[in-house]
Amino acid sequence: MMEPLSLLLPRESFMRVEKVRRAMADAGFDALLACDFATIYYLAGRVFDGFALIPADDDPVWFVKRPVHLGGERVCHIRKPEEIPAWLERFGSAAPNRLGLEMDLCSYSLVERLKAVFPAAECVNGSPALRVARSVKTPAELEKVRLSGTKHVGVYSRIPSLYTTGMTDYELQTAIEYLSRKEGCLGQFRISGSSMELFMGNVISGDSADAPSPYDFAMGGRGMDPSLPVGASGEEIRPGCTVMVDVNGNFTGYMTDMTRVYSLGTLPKLALDAHQCSIDIHAEFRRMAASGASARALYEMAENMARERGFEKYFMGHAQHAGFVGHGVGIEINELPVLAPRSRDILEAGNVVALEPKFVIPGVGAVGIENTYIIGEDGAECVTAAPEEIISLD
Amino acid sequence: MMEPLSLLLPRESFMRVEKVRRAMADAGFDALLACDFATIYYLAGRVFDGFALIPADDDPVWFVKRPVHLGGERVCHIRKPEEIPAWLERFGSAAPNRLGLEMDLCSYSLVERLKAVFPAAECVNGSPALRVARSVKTPAELEKVRLSGTKHVGVYSRIPSLYTTGMTDYELQTAIEYLSRKEGCLGQFRISGSSMELFMGNVISGDSADAPSPYDFAMGGRGMDPSLPVGASGEEIRPGCTVMVDVNGNFTGYMTDMTRVYSLGTLPKLALDAHQCSIDIHAEFRRMAASGASARALYEMAENMARERGFEKYFMGHAQHAGFVGHGVGIEINELPVLAPRSRDILEAGNVVALEPKFVIPGVGAVGIENTYIIGEDGAECVTAAPEEIISLD
Repeated sequence: MMEPLSLLLPRESFMRVEKVRRAMADAGFDALLACDFATIYYLAGRVFDGFALIPADDDPVWFVKRPVHLGGERVCHIRKPEEIPAWLERFGSAAPNRLGLEMDLCSYSLVERLKAVFPAAECVNGSPALRVARSVKTPAELEKVRLSGTKHVGVYSRIPSLYTTGMTDYELQTAIEYLSRKEGCLGQFRISGSSMELFMGNVISGDSADAPSPYDFAMGGRGMDPSLPVGASGEEIRPGCTVMVDVNGNFTGYMTDMTRVYSLGTLPKLALDAHQCSIDIHAEFRRMAASGASARALYEMAENMARERGFEKYFMGHAQHAGFVGHGVGIEINELPVLAPRSRDILEAGNVVALEPKFVIPGVGAVGIENTYIIGEDGAECVTAAPEEIISLD
Repeated sequence: MMEPLSLLLPRESFMRVEKVRRAMADAGFDALLACDFATIYYLAGRVFDGFALIPADDDPVWFVKRPVHLGGERVCHIRKPEEIPAWLERFGSAAPNRLGLEMDLCSYSLVERLKAVFPAAECVNGSPALRVARSVKTPAELEKVRLSGTKHVGVYSRIPSLYTTGMTDYELQTAIEYLSRKEGCLGQFRISGSSMELFMGNVISGDSADAPSPYDFAMGGRGMDPSLPVGASGEEIRPGCTVMVDVNGNFTGYMTDMTRVYSLGTLPKLALDAHQCSIDIHAEFRRMAASGASARALYEMAENMARERGFEKYFMGHAQHAGFVGHGVGIEINELPVLAPRSRDILEAGNVVALEPKFVIPGVGAVGIENTYIIGEDGAECVTAAPEEIISLD
């Protein structure tokens, strides 16, 4: 029983392919061959193992290795990429002259193999064009983002009810994971490239927030094992400390990113003030963020506010500092735009941006919130709207 | 406060590096530069972001981007790989002539960048040598495998107690995930390369087992969403059907792989007989598997037993067939050796092999078991020993 390959409506499919084609035209290549699972999901609305070929002036051609039950127009079942050129001839498609390949994602061995499949083509890096295309979401993608946000907020609203006296951060993390899964979280935390590993999200309490992370996270947590040094550390949640919860919001194939802070007992003024600074940075972001805003200016706004209030040495980490304050999010957690000191990204309507001004206060833990925003022509829509102050677990 | 970079005992570290050096010598290169997280964990006993350089005739040099708090002899903090040659000069290390890079894992862009860092070196693919080195585990690694196996078996022993009437496969899957996490499962399912995606493991009931998977699994399950078509499908577990449980055994940084089958009501004879065939294949494997055994012969033994009993069309899938019956396992789920029709691997003492002869019976579901074995000089030690018959949930 064959199923149609693409699960996207024709108009939706066309919009996505057109976005890629515009980015291809800007980069000057006449065909793109993609195979990364996230890219395939973007183009087809489902994951398959194989390749999508997007010619500049023709419809996409789909080359499927697995699963066997996908069919439809311009769907070809192959065992290996060497079979692609013969199929293209059969379709009367022109051989590509300049061919974009996902050189930032595909292994060197695979790219060399693909270059040999198209010996007459000049192969160039297609990854940046795909990142640009995917950074502006379609209305249908934004609906998936909003739905993830709603479910994400629902899970967070129940976190205080999961806490019991004497719990470790690990126990709280696993309880949140289970609640999330019961609410339909898909679990998988999709990351582009290889700068990070993460299971399902992080619950970080006390000084575990100050453990320098090997990964490109704002703060990662010490983790339970040196094979995966991220997330809860297994220590009891202690009075006078914070618990920062930054867990997976992938309920729809599109992720939202959200962080809230919980506490036991009384926190020092420094922690409370730094948390308020994060809330204020979000308020300022909501005033500034709209189509045309500079990602670098948004980073500088956050850093300046932290510096003016004397929190510079805690901003985005203490023992180790992260070099950004926000990032695009969608199918993956690290999309464009990037809110960082040297970013040249300009916000566009349809970007989805997670803003996470956070602080690590030694002896207390991490404070600060993260929200996900949809950028519009004239402003930003928060899709993870929920109380922003520190929530007591007592 | 600096921490020593390597968490391995000196002798353990030496054994692992020596294994890599022998594989390098066989492949004819005089230095290897690695950066994949799994490789780094293998070499250092912890994950960091950076590079490990292994010269053929000198001690390793460690280049760390993150975290900032690692120190010790021959540990260099860098911001980018372009800083590596100057450090090597400072150590008086010879510039590599033939340099192995992880070309099967690193992106094309990264390998091109590293080639430019070492313009005088001939760069070759170091991935196969690393796979070979890692396929024979040290005694300390085998202890981690055994410990994962013990905890894995403990989780499986409690699966029947998690089932309640009317449960869906998804509800059972998430309950097993939570139990596993409470028992210390690290969650992360490490896969080398990009042939698979998986959250934490699979619970597959009824005909979801026959949904062709985009991934390189024996059988994957339909999943809850087209963005991640794997695992439980959300349907109620029905009488007359099986539930196959194949969930994550990563409790120590080293994984075991284990599958058991549960059922409701009465199963048809075909399903029971096919399951018995899987048990019998395991028994035959335990007779044959030892240092020197041919991985291909082990595959053929399994396939022949399935064919002789008339189960060929259900063997390793029905609508879609997987091309292997077993695989190496360790830090990652897809290591050497591979038990497949054209494998040239010869088993060695210290290999860890997951054997998974499985069958998909239409209308019933998947049957068959998976165990993880440590290969010895004269036999195989099962580290996931537990009852093998189908376990009733009634």
